[in-house]
Amino acid sequence: MSKGLPTRSENYSEWYNELVKRADLAENSPVRGCMVIKPYGFSIWEKMQRALDDMFKDTGHSNAYFPLFIPKSFLSKEADHVEGFAKECAVVTHYRLKNDPNGGGVIVDPDAKLEEELIVRPTSETVIWSTYKNWIQSYRDLPLLINQWANVVRWEMRTRIFLRTSEFLWQEGHTAHATQAEAIAETEQMLDVYATFAEEWMALPVLRGIKTPNERFAGAVETYCIEALMQDNKALQAGTSHFLGQNFAKAFDVKFQDKEGGLEYVWGTSWGTSTRLMGALIMAHSDDSGLVLPPKLAPIQVVIVPIYRDEEQLAKISDRVNGLVKELRKKGISVKFDDSDAYKPGYKFAEYELRGVPVRLAMGMRDFENGTVEVARRDTKTKETLPFDGIVDHIANLLEEIQQSIFNKALAYREANSFRADSYEEFKTTLDEKGGFIYAHWDGTAETEDKIKEETKATIRCIPLDAPEEEGTCIYSGKPSSRRVVFARAY
Amino acid sequence: MSKGLPTRSENYSEWYNELVKRADLAENSPVRGCMVIKPYGFSIWEKMQRALDDMFKDTGHSNAYFPLFIPKSFLSKEADHVEGFAKECAVVTHYRLKNDPNGGGVIVDPDAKLEEELIVRPTSETVIWSTYKNWIQSYRDLPLLINQWANVVRWEMRTRIFLRTSEFLWQEGHTAHATQAEAIAETEQMLDVYATFAEEWMALPVLRGIKTPNERFAGAVETYCIEALMQDNKALQAGTSHFLGQNFAKAFDVKFQDKEGGLEYVWGTSWGTSTRLMGALIMAHSDDSGLVLPPKLAPIQVVIVPIYRDEEQLAKISDRVNGLVKELRKKGISVKFDDSDAYKPGYKFAEYELRGVPVRLAMGMRDFENGTVEVARRDTKTKETLPFDGIVDHIANLLEEIQQSIFNKALAYREANSFRADSYEEFKTTLDEKGGFIYAHWDGTAETEDKIKEETKATIRCIPLDAPEEEGTCIYSGKPSSRRVVFARAY
Repeated sequence: MSKGLPTRSENYSEWYNELVKRADLAENSPVRGCMVIKPYGFSIWEKMQRALDDMFKDTGHSNAYFPLFIPKSFLSKEADHVEGFAKECAVVTHYRLKNDPNGGGVIVDPDAKLEEELIVRPTSETVIWSTYKNWIQSYRDLPLLINQWANVVRWEMRTRIFLRTSEFLWQEGHTAHATQAEAIAETEQMLDVYATFAEEWMALPVLRGIKTPNERFAGAVETYCIEALMQDNKALQAGTSHFLGQNFAKAFDVKFQDKEGGLEYVWGTSWGTSTRLMGALIMAHSDDSGLVLPPKLAPIQVVIVPIYRDEEQLAKISDRVNGLVKELRKKGISVKFDDSDAYKPGYKFAEYELRGVPVRLAMGMRDFENGTVEVARRDTKTKETLPFDGIVDHIANLLEEIQQSIFNKALAYREANSFRADSYEEFKTTLDEKGGFIYAHWDGTAETEDKIKEETKATIRCIPLDAPEEEGTCIYSGKPSSRRVVFARAY
Repeated sequence: MSKGLPTRSENYSEWYNELVKRADLAENSPVRGCMVIKPYGFSIWEKMQRALDDMFKDTGHSNAYFPLFIPKSFLSKEADHVEGFAKECAVVTHYRLKNDPNGGGVIVDPDAKLEEELIVRPTSETVIWSTYKNWIQSYRDLPLLINQWANVVRWEMRTRIFLRTSEFLWQEGHTAHATQAEAIAETEQMLDVYATFAEEWMALPVLRGIKTPNERFAGAVETYCIEALMQDNKALQAGTSHFLGQNFAKAFDVKFQDKEGGLEYVWGTSWGTSTRLMGALIMAHSDDSGLVLPPKLAPIQVVIVPIYRDEEQLAKISDRVNGLVKELRKKGISVKFDDSDAYKPGYKFAEYELRGVPVRLAMGMRDFENGTVEVARRDTKTKETLPFDGIVDHIANLLEEIQQSIFNKALAYREANSFRADSYEEFKTTLDEKGGFIYAHWDGTAETEDKIKEETKATIRCIPLDAPEEEGTCIYSGKPSSRRVVFARAY
């Protein structure tokens, strides 16, 4: 590390960019809007993938793979859908390069033009529903519960690493059901899976809610979402689950014979989370010294740094530490013993702090002789010297405590930054002075929502699923409202 | 199943296509040359991925992710490389669609043309080496050992599901080293990893060898490969590992400061395997009744089918079977108890046979009363009635035996279909009458290789790594040769 990170209070945005770079998470690639996810960043993403994938399989889903390309005509079949995605997509028009006969180097071969242009998938509803048409004939073929891990491309003009990139990695679930009720239950179940993952793995408390029609997925009847609050008091949508009604079934003519012999359109859902979660994870917990990772997603949960003057001392410490490493691994704890002599302990401490390793142990000759070890927590930046005996159990408990503690801190932060506003003035003042989640009454119209967005840049993040009924009046129009919705400026 | 598969002897190619379709492995998509990998097929691929990924990590590699798109100018930087990939690639030229003002529906927006065309990666050496330039300054940054799981696109004109598709899934390793010797050792190590995977997981014996310059990867100094023999006596390349020399380091100016302070170009390797392995797996072991899966890659290793007349009988059988299911799972064996009443046992038997489930258990009332169970092996199509007591250990051993037995059978097949030819006449006769691997002397020239290919459609699959020195004369030119190479017609 050459010098410290910018602080969050100085420049939150720069702090984030620098942290992503210095902690070796990702970087911008030479290809506009596309990122390179570096090994350390990718290893966190792999842990997320594994956990989510297990949850999808536990709820009965299987993985499959559908084509990267979508014929232009497919995208056009669902009217809202093409409207939503046509404006920013990568279009393949040719299938060959050649040497310029005029010496201009390698050029696109004009003779190799595709009959129909192909769109690099921005999402796969269309190509998947065109396939489901062949897979679904009878109620016996339902439900069809499929997930895909894939890359997708949306040609974003203003990109931000992890949060908004032209190419990103994600999973997209696409299910088909015999009844509306079952499809809605699936949509809600997957929202729960996302919320559970966010809270139990990412230590990220989330609101569960429904999007307004304005913010709905292009082609959905209802969009459910989870929303989290970042440390700069902006909101971040961390996952969405869509009830598609029969929209895609109708667009692709997917019908099934029901038990009574009638022919009905199939009901659908889709749901997705992406590498955007990496951005959420970083922004929710990290501090001015670097990343803070919840233990369940940390590629290295415990690092052990020996402090020694010569080979003999190192040999003694290593001898003791090697046994500890084995014991920790036996408990399923990932541990790194960093005995490289390329860097000094102080440098290593800073480096592992930057990378968010939850627990750091250090052992010098005094510890060795006293039968102790220094245990430092990344999240609280506290340390204590403890007896070496019994340290394995202590660490196992400590990791659980850290996981919970990071969640509690984020929850307390969100609670301290959730406000009510009962007038438009109060709303604007709160938004400008504090930010955060603002619970306010809204008249339910797109016009009001648009006006507020235009005037304040705040959007309705969601209508919380657990919002109590409460008579009130819209902060903007003064018209009656029966529950508060959540406003925020958002990523 | 409506009717049986075509047989291998009748029509090998149709047998393969039908098997892929009926066993629910994959299908052609509406997008030219791209496939849909169905859940059952994908679950086999997932097992392959997991096993390979573990082996990559055990040899010190980390996963990362690089962009889908490659700027046209990047592809052009390594002369052989662009020559090899320019002729069949998907080219992105625009980033937006719009509604045709003349009412022609959704069209490509001519105002949204990219300044520089982007190629959908056919392989990622160029974009990765352009990134490595920033990651590598000193010998301390080496070796850099990275792998990526990704989709790639090569615009194939004649496609064949799993074997040759326009889009396919693969992994591509890209490593950078300080010395030539280290890079060659890495290339060879990864060939070993592939060979071990093929033999121990896929039960597929492979030849390890080196490609002739004609068959080398575009941009490599040396290409190593593993080659397998299919049941129609055609060869299939199942993985390649390339020593890149300093070619990409020079093309992208990637230098490092060595320990003595000098500035040197970095040495590189790349290595890949793809969903083509699925094709190899299917074609190597399956029979006229369907898929034969080696237990280590079977999504379901054991299926249990109850045979019953009424609910009471089913309850009794289930009660006994449920305990067995638990015991098997405890041993890490994947098991399905198919007690659905939608289909009759005979139908289920055929279905699981088609899908290649290695072991099928059946229990009827007679078995229940006698304390026995019927055990059927998919690979040999044999069955026996065994005591229920001790069946768990029997199955665990049986799965290992089946894994080994499938390998042994494939090895015996390859040995029976490996021939020597000492004249061109003998070579052609063997090729036409038998096919298989033909060991023959070759003069080492591209001209001879081309002629033989032109006249017989046989290519040199590899120069085996373990080929003994043996004086001889080229079957085509009569010129001297010091070792035999392996010819075959190939996929």
